[in-house]
Amino acid sequence: MAVRALVFDVFGTLVDWRSAVADAFRSEGVAGDPEELADAWRARYRPILDEVNDGLRPWGNFDELHLATLQDVLAERAITLSPDQQERLVYTWHRLDPWPDVREGLEVLRRGFLTAPLSNGHVALIVDLARHGDLRFDCILSAELAHAYKPAPQTYLTAAHLLDVQPSELMLVAAHPSDLAGARAAGLRTGFIDRPLEHGPATGKRSDPKADVSVGDLHELARVLADATFN
Amino acid sequence: MAVRALVFDVFGTLVDWRSAVADAFRSEGVAGDPEELADAWRARYRPILDEVNDGLRPWGNFDELHLATLQDVLAERAITLSPDQQERLVYTWHRLDPWPDVREGLEVLRRGFLTAPLSNGHVALIVDLARHGDLRFDCILSAELAHAYKPAPQTYLTAAHLLDVQPSELMLVAAHPSDLAGARAAGLRTGFIDRPLEHGPATGKRSDPKADVSVGDLHELARVLADATFN
Repeated sequence: MAVRALVFDVFGTLVDWRSAVADAFRSEGVAGDPEELADAWRARYRPILDEVNDGLRPWGNFDELHLATLQDVLAERAITLSPDQQERLVYTWHRLDPWPDVREGLEVLRRGFLTAPLSNGHVALIVDLARHGDLRFDCILSAELAHAYKPAPQTYLTAAHLLDVQPSELMLVAAHPSDLAGARAAGLRTGFIDRPLEHGPATGKRSDPKADVSVGDLHELARVLADATFN
Repeated sequence: MAVRALVFDVFGTLVDWRSAVADAFRSEGVAGDPEELADAWRARYRPILDEVNDGLRPWGNFDELHLATLQDVLAERAITLSPDQQERLVYTWHRLDPWPDVREGLEVLRRGFLTAPLSNGHVALIVDLARHGDLRFDCILSAELAHAYKPAPQTYLTAAHLLDVQPSELMLVAAHPSDLAGARAAGLRTGFIDRPLEHGPATGKRSDPKADVSVGDLHELARVLADATFN
């Protein structure tokens, strides 16, 4: 069964959230280490999505969830910011720069595959990121369209349905083994991409032994997929 | 209130369905007038969508609906085609050429507005048409995402929601006054685009007096929107 379509995780996989979010804390003059604040904000991402998936919190788009988690981070540190400052920080997530290989890598991959982001971020947010980075996809897919966040299986299965491919014809490309594990559980192919700078100082070279392929960037992914056969 | 986003009807508005569908009947050697067959097939489009919207027929994507309506057209004329021939005809709707102004016109409009198709066709079909015509949008919107066909209001409102704009900040661009009326009823702005060749021999120049703007092509739309203010 050949892979016909590729869907990409976005935050950390295609775009660098940490640099821009730390810069935003810096330019708002927020007390504390900007990188530590960025990491603390991002660390609250998974728990709040779990709350939504578990039915403990109503559905919210990423602007709403980012605002809630920002307010938690600030409260924890007794930092007070104006509503305008909070809004600007939340909006930072709409203009994150892609990693250097992404813009051109996506163009190359689009010649051979249907391509789409598959983010937990809502459609309008991913549209803004794609415009900001001049990233061209065939369409924008999001957890919003399944009303369930990754790694819930329906998020991946909705993507396959909307692209009109079988789950086994669809590969999720992500820098996060937990996301890939969710995709695999839903029957998708998986491609790990190493993003050593996602959390700051470079880590050693990593791979995901459970993924169908592990690569260092999108150009390598294009080369590997050109030669790959899947059972 | 400024218009921030444009959504486009696709069949007839952005792409010429009649020429390619007639050509497909011709190349399959189907008895009868190819243009008349194309028109008869398309004429069954609105009734079958109404059946779905009225709950008389389960949801189907456009490949399924096109197959059902094709079989009706063929049965009416006592024409027998193989399943392969039927499938090729249905698949013709995935590779219709855009009208001559569309590819470049969309690029111009995308500089100033969020842009997306908003078709009754399913996402995968519109993705194929966009790839076929090298049409670049910010995302692909479809009745499939609202699970209701235009002119049901939720189709337009789902588009506004996914783009994170108010209905009054969103303009539907279409060659069909009935579609524009549905959008207007949902609170959208409307732009009529004249496509005199949609149904074959050119008609006289038309406009839609109820639409906010009436134009002859996407380049004219870009010029008009650059100067327009809306109450």
